[in-house]
Amino acid sequence: MKGAVLSIAPSAVLVDLTHDIPAHDIAAGAFTLSAAYGEFPAGTILLAVVDPGVGSTRRAIAVQAHDHFFVGPDNGLFSLIYDREPDRRIIDLTNEKYFRRSESTTFDGRDVFAPVAAHLANGVAFTEFGPEIHDPVRLPWPKPQAMPDGSVPGAIIHIDRFGNCVTNLTRAELLFPLEEGRFGLRINDHEVTRMARSYEVANTSEAFLIWGSAGYLEISIRERSAAEMLRIQKGNTFTISCQSPLPVV
Amino acid sequence: MKGAVLSIAPSAVLVDLTHDIPAHDIAAGAFTLSAAYGEFPAGTILLAVVDPGVGSTRRAIAVQAHDHFFVGPDNGLFSLIYDREPDRRIIDLTNEKYFRRSESTTFDGRDVFAPVAAHLANGVAFTEFGPEIHDPVRLPWPKPQAMPDGSVPGAIIHIDRFGNCVTNLTRAELLFPLEEGRFGLRINDHEVTRMARSYEVANTSEAFLIWGSAGYLEISIRERSAAEMLRIQKGNTFTISCQSPLPVV
Amino acid sequence: MKGAVLSIAPSAVLVDLTHDIPAHDIAAGAFTLSAAYGEFPAGTILLAVVDPGVGSTRRAIAVQAHDHFFVGPDNGLFSLIYDREPDRRIIDLTNEKYFRRSESTTFDGRDVFAPVAAHLANGVAFTEFGPEIHDPVRLPWPKPQAMPDGSVPGAIIHIDRFGNCVTNLTRAELLFPLEEGRFGLRINDHEVTRMARSYEVANTSEAFLIWGSAGYLEISIRERSAAEMLRIQKGNTFTISCQSPLPVV
Repeated sequence: MKGAVLSIAPSAVLVDLTHDIPAHDIAAGAFTLSAAYGEFPAGTILLAVVDPGVGSTRRAIAVQAHDHFFVGPDNGLFSLIYDREPDRRIIDLTNEKYFRRSESTTFDGRDVFAPVAAHLANGVAFTEFGPEIHDPVRLPWPKPQAMPDGSVPGAIIHIDRFGNCVTNLTRAELLFPLEEGRFGLRINDHEVTRMARSYEVANTSEAFLIWGSAGYLEISIRERSAAEMLRIQKGNTFTISCQSPLPVV
Repeated sequence: MKGAVLSIAPSAVLVDLTHDIPAHDIAAGAFTLSAAYGEFPAGTILLAVVDPGVGSTRRAIAVQAHDHFFVGPDNGLFSLIYDREPDRRIIDLTNEKYFRRSESTTFDGRDVFAPVAAHLANGVAFTEFGPEIHDPVRLPWPKPQAMPDGSVPGAIIHIDRFGNCVTNLTRAELLFPLEEGRFGLRINDHEVTRMARSYEVANTSEAFLIWGSAGYLEISIRERSAAEMLRIQKGNTFTISCQSPLPVV
Repeated sequence: MKGAVLSIAPSAVLVDLTHDIPAHDIAAGAFTLSAAYGEFPAGTILLAVVDPGVGSTRRAIAVQAHDHFFVGPDNGLFSLIYDREPDRRIIDLTNEKYFRRSESTTFDGRDVFAPVAAHLANGVAFTEFGPEIHDPVRLPWPKPQAMPDGSVPGAIIHIDRFGNCVTNLTRAELLFPLEEGRFGLRINDHEVTRMARSYEVANTSEAFLIWGSAGYLEISIRERSAAEMLRIQKGNTFTISCQSPLPVV
């Protein structure tokens, strides 16, 4: 893929974002992209390939969202970008003029996405690559919603390489402050009641909650894998609730 | 190695091709190089180090093949390049003027190959680095040859990170078309009879054949590791044969 | 982190040194940095994040050592740089003007270290980032010292991806030459008596000593993992002694 880009756009600056997305794990790719893209300079093209459906009828797409571009398969990989960037435009990549000629059907990363990204980097207009579409594939991403009693059901959307378990909860969903001793999160027969601002506060056997760098609440254990110690897997659900009454504001 | 390159050729553009070659696996390096080098722009130098014999009497070499250069150990790592590029020239890297001075004998990647690649990038003439040689080491790579009955014995030459099993068969070796129901590939007590153009056609328990992106026939299972499910290892052999008579063309 | 750098210093050349440091393993990061930094051109900034204490009171620092800069947490990650570079200066990164504004407390790599490294690359003066300090955290690194009988106790400080076991012994600590049959290294009930200049000399079952590329004595087995075969772990200690009397010089 890098060769395909540089053959078309020799002065493109290539940056490896990650090579640690598990095979076929579109959701992990979606999470990683949404956490990282905003850090990159205006005009950056995020070329992303987690593509179990390569060679099938799944579409190839490019997305323009504010100052960033995305190129990859239409399989939900950009779901979280759609959520965050309501003004994004999506193009169905049908203009084969910008593809690499290939007999292969199994490596669109090299044959379609990389060449398109390179032409985009060279200044080819976004709309040149195909017609606009409005029905991109979206992952069934769990959307948190508070219950009448204020408790919030959540789900684990990502587990990072340290074993930190990222939930789908942001500050917006929690109607009560996460103050130590005033909340409880139940997952897999474990109850997490500690809140931390740093991984170092607790000892290495006690799970705690912490606001992660992507803005989501995470379940962590100091210098250990919370996923392993609490047997948490992606997709696991839980409930977090307020333990003691709070004054209504 | 990157530091050694940049210290000599500060404006060299470094691109990581892969860091996933298993330790000492020269064949995996050879396969990966042969699949990738053609995508890179003319003038690209492929610096490749899979080097279990470092410090021994194995030669250090550079290869010029058309528009591409290769620098690394003479242990078969460039075998497939020799097959594909009959006009290649090979230099025995003996001119120590272009090496890094070092007491170490265990890291020619840093002390020999990276400096030579950097000087090459700086424009030093290919023939400056040593005398031409004509007897490079080649891997004993299995060359497929059709049997009198048209069947073709093959071998697994590579297993990728998804568990796809790459065979040594290209379109040139098969005298019959791979049409579903008309061929059979026997490997490890399994019979593969399906042919696919995309990983998505089959269900997740059924093995199929597919033409891979490097031009070789591959054995795959949708979203699973065919290597694991069929217990296939690199070096395993098989026979593929035509199941039903075909009209002679 | 790469996005954070490029947003501030768009023309910075990013090079991935390694992504294989085990989680929380500060010593492995320290070893890798000390082995690699000297290869990079003058002015290179080594941005290093192995940071289990992120968000706690551990300081964020930058180090200037001769022609190289280092940016990262003050947790011992730069210990070996302090040993090698007595003239280094260390700055406590307190000038928040050069940080990324963030609600997060768990990713100083993105919010503190990357922005500081980028501003440093842009030419901001080293002393602009905060006050100088003289009490950096150091790892308790085993310092070898010969015994009265000339034997030297050592420790395993690193195990590389091939399973080679790096000791803390350099040529300076050994008062006797490592000549085959004249020394013995005892570790975990194994006695290593062979010395090699290349990984290829021995067979694949025999352990030997070899001077590694970073200048330390290593325990290796040809095309095998010495760590696995001899059950050596980081931190294991051993004694190396002279087996037969040598003439006093």
